[in-house]
Amino acid sequence: MQTVHVHTTSHDYPIHIGAGILCDFSLFAPYIGKKIAIVTNETVAPLYLNQLTDLFKKNNIQYFTIILPDGEQYKNHDSLNQIYDALLTHHADRKTTLIALGGGVIGDMVGFAAATYQRGVPFIQIPTTLLSQVDSSVGGKTAINHPLGKNMIGAFYQPKLVMTDLNTLQTLPEKEFSAGMAEVIKYGLLGDLDFFVWIEQNIHEIMHQQPEKLTKIIAHCCQMKANIVAQDETEQGIRAHLNLGHTFGHAIETEMGYGNWLHGEAVAAGTVLACALSEQLGCLKNGDTARVAALFRAANLPDKPPKFPFNQWIAHMRHDKKVENGIMRFITLQKLGCAQISEISDMKLLDFLRNHNFSRF
Amino acid sequence: MQTVHVHTTSHDYPIHIGAGILCDFSLFAPYIGKKIAIVTNETVAPLYLNQLTDLFKKNNIQYFTIILPDGEQYKNHDSLNQIYDALLTHHADRKTTLIALGGGVIGDMVGFAAATYQRGVPFIQIPTTLLSQVDSSVGGKTAINHPLGKNMIGAFYQPKLVMTDLNTLQTLPEKEFSAGMAEVIKYGLLGDLDFFVWIEQNIHEIMHQQPEKLTKIIAHCCQMKANIVAQDETEQGIRAHLNLGHTFGHAIETEMGYGNWLHGEAVAAGTVLACALSEQLGCLKNGDTARVAALFRAANLPDKPPKFPFNQWIAHMRHDKKVENGIMRFITLQKLGCAQISEISDMKLLDFLRNHNFSRF
Repeated sequence: MQTVHVHTTSHDYPIHIGAGILCDFSLFAPYIGKKIAIVTNETVAPLYLNQLTDLFKKNNIQYFTIILPDGEQYKNHDSLNQIYDALLTHHADRKTTLIALGGGVIGDMVGFAAATYQRGVPFIQIPTTLLSQVDSSVGGKTAINHPLGKNMIGAFYQPKLVMTDLNTLQTLPEKEFSAGMAEVIKYGLLGDLDFFVWIEQNIHEIMHQQPEKLTKIIAHCCQMKANIVAQDETEQGIRAHLNLGHTFGHAIETEMGYGNWLHGEAVAAGTVLACALSEQLGCLKNGDTARVAALFRAANLPDKPPKFPFNQWIAHMRHDKKVENGIMRFITLQKLGCAQISEISDMKLLDFLRNHNFSRF
Repeated sequence: MQTVHVHTTSHDYPIHIGAGILCDFSLFAPYIGKKIAIVTNETVAPLYLNQLTDLFKKNNIQYFTIILPDGEQYKNHDSLNQIYDALLTHHADRKTTLIALGGGVIGDMVGFAAATYQRGVPFIQIPTTLLSQVDSSVGGKTAINHPLGKNMIGAFYQPKLVMTDLNTLQTLPEKEFSAGMAEVIKYGLLGDLDFFVWIEQNIHEIMHQQPEKLTKIIAHCCQMKANIVAQDETEQGIRAHLNLGHTFGHAIETEMGYGNWLHGEAVAAGTVLACALSEQLGCLKNGDTARVAALFRAANLPDKPPKFPFNQWIAHMRHDKKVENGIMRFITLQKLGCAQISEISDMKLLDFLRNHNFSRF
């Protein structure tokens, strides 16, 4: 087991990473009170809920469970209210601990419920997807969707503990494991060339879920994100680098309809576009983009975007939250392993998208 | 004009207190961006909204308004969602400033909307009732009600600025002014005997809204609350003293049906009960309770609770959030001007309520 310690302005918390750690009550013990609410979804419940409830039963911890439907389309006020209702019905008080057992959707929603129930209760995350293990464990971003926008309602709220059990990845669909790898590769690109090279060299073992390799990539990404977030907890500056590939990625997700391309797949294609844009800006060397695209392919990820009209690209990207005062800002690469913010005019972007015909990569 | 500076863990902010300050754009200027959303209710809008929008128009500040129905029964998710919808429809971004123009209900709801819209946007309070001026301006408590409990969904979130214009009190119903005075008197009792004595000596001028006296009481209460909250921002310890009279008060409100007794009226009667309990504990001197009751009467407030059965008292107080692990905790007085936490058994409480027959005061 490896542990990453995350420092935040409100408190510090550990991320424990290892195979089978969900059975180790001593890791939970310092962070739970007398009563626990476990929130999970219909997909994860049959796989891991019993394991957890058995653990609490054996240790005489009072608990109750809340099982929500699975999917991004349920990351809304109705599901949030199901959590509130259950908490109130079970007389949960300010010391009741909420546990989020599931992927990013469960983590985001339960985190927001914990942030807002009685103005804040303790919260433990058990992320069960690679994406949530590397991305949602650090940063304190919680949210639900609103009919008029994704993640529009939320709060910055930190967990007391994150338990990342590698065994939960064994039941994760391969497509989703790959989607998580898009974010892992992104971390190398935006801030650590050595890590990027290490992923290139070990991609085969990683894709076969070799436990030591998995522990290393998850711990490394969490540590990198923790360092970035520590400098910028409420996302005013450098934290924007984490959005590498996400502006193009969001446009792809919007155009294709959410759920048709996984977030990680869109981020992979979006990151290749961001690399190509960086090459055009004269930052990346010729061939760097092709090298990045090759690694995404090795992780069974798309290395180019679907084709759709220029004006759709512009329209979708304009809706991105990062647009401020009409200026379009992109995260690009100064060189492999080093991100920057670039301001790009509509005309330049149009040229870029046209020149590449979406098919160069 | 007087200014109280409030220090919080996230940032510091000023509370400006004075007559007519709502017309002074220079006080707003440092705290607003290019776009403002003003949220108010149907009662306050016809009185003060134009004054504010004229000010912003004259200074070329882009704004839009959201007018909600008036009343505690609208402090719910539907109203909150009206705010979210308007913000999204008007493309409010993370730099849009929310202004709460109204009493405690508007302040609590708009504060919660600001805490959660895009994970937090800037927020200015313009409290228009005495209660919200002395009580909601400090502490960062925001919330909405849930069908299963009052203030169950909320967050701790601080404003950037509080503008307390005494002129807004001129349109406040007398009954509500008195209700605000219950909290003012409470501050003297729980932490400052000199202030309590000063209120006794000046109660006539205060009730006639003499501006200098009003400025003093509002500034003094805000400063006292700021000192208490600074020691205990998330309500783990000493901040509980602010709940003097509130456990009995909540029981009265619940029994009578919310809205039949104003919160401040219930707190006045509840505070007299807390004093009598303190006398029985041997803390207050004989006659202290009568002295407190006399001041509440001078402020046109009830000095005794309505009569209702013992078991109802117990049942209502058990539902109070301050009950932890079945122990009933009350804020009592060590002496006038000094609060403490007392743990009281059900039997002792029953004796107390029976002995006083609710009519001794």
